Amino acid sequence: MASSPTKIGFVGTGIMGLPMARNLLRAGFAVRAFNRTRSKAEPLAADGAVLVDSPAAAADGADAVISIVSDSPDVEAVYLGLGGVATAARLPPLAIDMSTISPAVSRRIGEVLGNKGCDFLDAPVSGGERGAIEATLSIMVGGSAEAFRRAVPILKAMGRTIVHCGPSGAGQVTKLCNQVVGAMNLLGVAEAITIARKADLDVDRMLEAVASGAARSWAVENLGPKMRDRDFAPGFMIDLQQKDLRLVLELARQIRASIPGTAVVNQLFAANQAAGEGTEGTQAIVKTIERLSAMHA
Amino acid sequence: MASSPTKIGFVGTGIMGLPMARNLLRAGFAVRAFNRTRSKAEPLAADGAVLVDSPAAAADGADAVISIVSDSPDVEAVYLGLGGVATAARLPPLAIDMSTISPAVSRRIGEVLGNKGCDFLDAPVSGGERGAIEATLSIMVGGSAEAFRRAVPILKAMGRTIVHCGPSGAGQVTKLCNQVVGAMNLLGVAEAITIARKADLDVDRMLEAVASGAARSWAVENLGPKMRDRDFAPGFMIDLQQKDLRLVLELARQIRASIPGTAVVNQLFAANQAAGEGTEGTQAIVKTIERLSAMHA
Repeated sequence: MASSPTKIGFVGTGIMGLPMARNLLRAGFAVRAFNRTRSKAEPLAADGAVLVDSPAAAADGADAVISIVSDSPDVEAVYLGLGGVATAARLPPLAIDMSTISPAVSRRIGEVLGNKGCDFLDAPVSGGERGAIEATLSIMVGGSAEAFRRAVPILKAMGRTIVHCGPSGAGQVTKLCNQVVGAMNLLGVAEAITIARKADLDVDRMLEAVASGAARSWAVENLGPKMRDRDFAPGFMIDLQQKDLRLVLELARQIRASIPGTAVVNQLFAANQAAGEGTEGTQAIVKTIERLSAMHA
Repeated sequence: MASSPTKIGFVGTGIMGLPMARNLLRAGFAVRAFNRTRSKAEPLAADGAVLVDSPAAAADGADAVISIVSDSPDVEAVYLGLGGVATAARLPPLAIDMSTISPAVSRRIGEVLGNKGCDFLDAPVSGGERGAIEATLSIMVGGSAEAFRRAVPILKAMGRTIVHCGPSGAGQVTKLCNQVVGAMNLLGVAEAITIARKADLDVDRMLEAVASGAARSWAVENLGPKMRDRDFAPGFMIDLQQKDLRLVLELARQIRASIPGTAVVNQLFAANQAAGEGTEGTQAIVKTIERLSAMHA
């Protein structure tokens, strides 16, 4: 006799959440899904998900609830708000928030749920829409080792690199560290490409040379060619990057860290936003450097 | 009948030049070497090089002359100074300067030598002492395609990735682009590690997570662990990085490019120099971020 499938409540079926929930269905999980804008969840119904009307309904009686929404207040609402997960008649034993939010907010939600017998993990992801579709996300997890162990079979349906970073909040802090490194890598490429253009250098050969040595990075390999081709379609949107950098700078203020490089990148992206480019990909930071350099692309 | 070996005049047998000249000898080239401080060239004599007393004597009658010294004025002196290459009785048909210097100075030396029938290539390298020893340097070459073609068999004895970047000066500009990208990658890692430490995060797991995704870079993989271990021995010295960033900022001024990220890294390294850390490795920039964050390591 086959055991019944593990039941997952899934909250947030946006650009990331929709393909992630789909990968759970493909892996044999039973999914009950909620999205604030219901129409965005409807494609999932065709894949076998049951659509429900609140986070509480998604969570009720499930083996685990997963959320991936935009920002700290959204996650608070999903778990602690009216119709939130915490109000479910039968609270699941495990909750996994895969949003990128404030580590402090994450820890607080974890405490509230923990007191009700529900282990909470923060598990933000890296890898973008493509990683979500292909189930190759990197997942950075904070919470107890025991809860992590129980979550791994579920997370494996959505990601490839799954790292237990430490106690509650540690996944969020790790994700923010990741965003700091990625943003700075990107700015380096943008400044190098601007120098190359103004110095009449062949950008292709420059990128080839840089990508082969001690300056190599994912950003040079992947976003350098997009800057060269003036392809500013979002892999990762500037507005979302700015949300993450805001979280980084908030965290830095709380822990009293001074991070001048991150502050500069944040302000250069602010110039993109001022120019109406917030919905373009982060590689559009090169346009800010070009404007500073009075280039007319 | 075997043809006689290609004769190379080699100027500058420092940390980089010495192993590079040694690799030329190993590859079967005949080497006449000059170094301002003669004692530093003496180990080469045991490997079969002939030591001489001036750049002109190294170059005289050679098939090619190679130089790798510290800065723009040094390269000018090597080629155009008293006893310089340009004063050789029999000027070689090819000169390859592998120093990192001002692209403008490089182009000017190239013009002077070109007028005397000697093709000049700028061919700065990336890969550090280890790359020099293992003959795995990345070599970024500026100059005519014809001179590049003739230089390749010589350069192959010293490096692995050999890119023709464009006309005279293009190798230098490419190298400076490389330094911009590398310096920014490094700062990102330093700020992330400082956040991780202050937030009581496990630095190892953070580096593991970051190195596996879209923020990956040579710097995260190689300099992250050194920062973690507080190993500040120089792979590449802050004083030399600052020389390169000064060249970048000079170039930016000449071509009217505004590169705020590079300027910030330059000033943070200046803080290391102010603290007497100029001869430490570039990864010591993390100490500047720690001081800004009032950490006591």
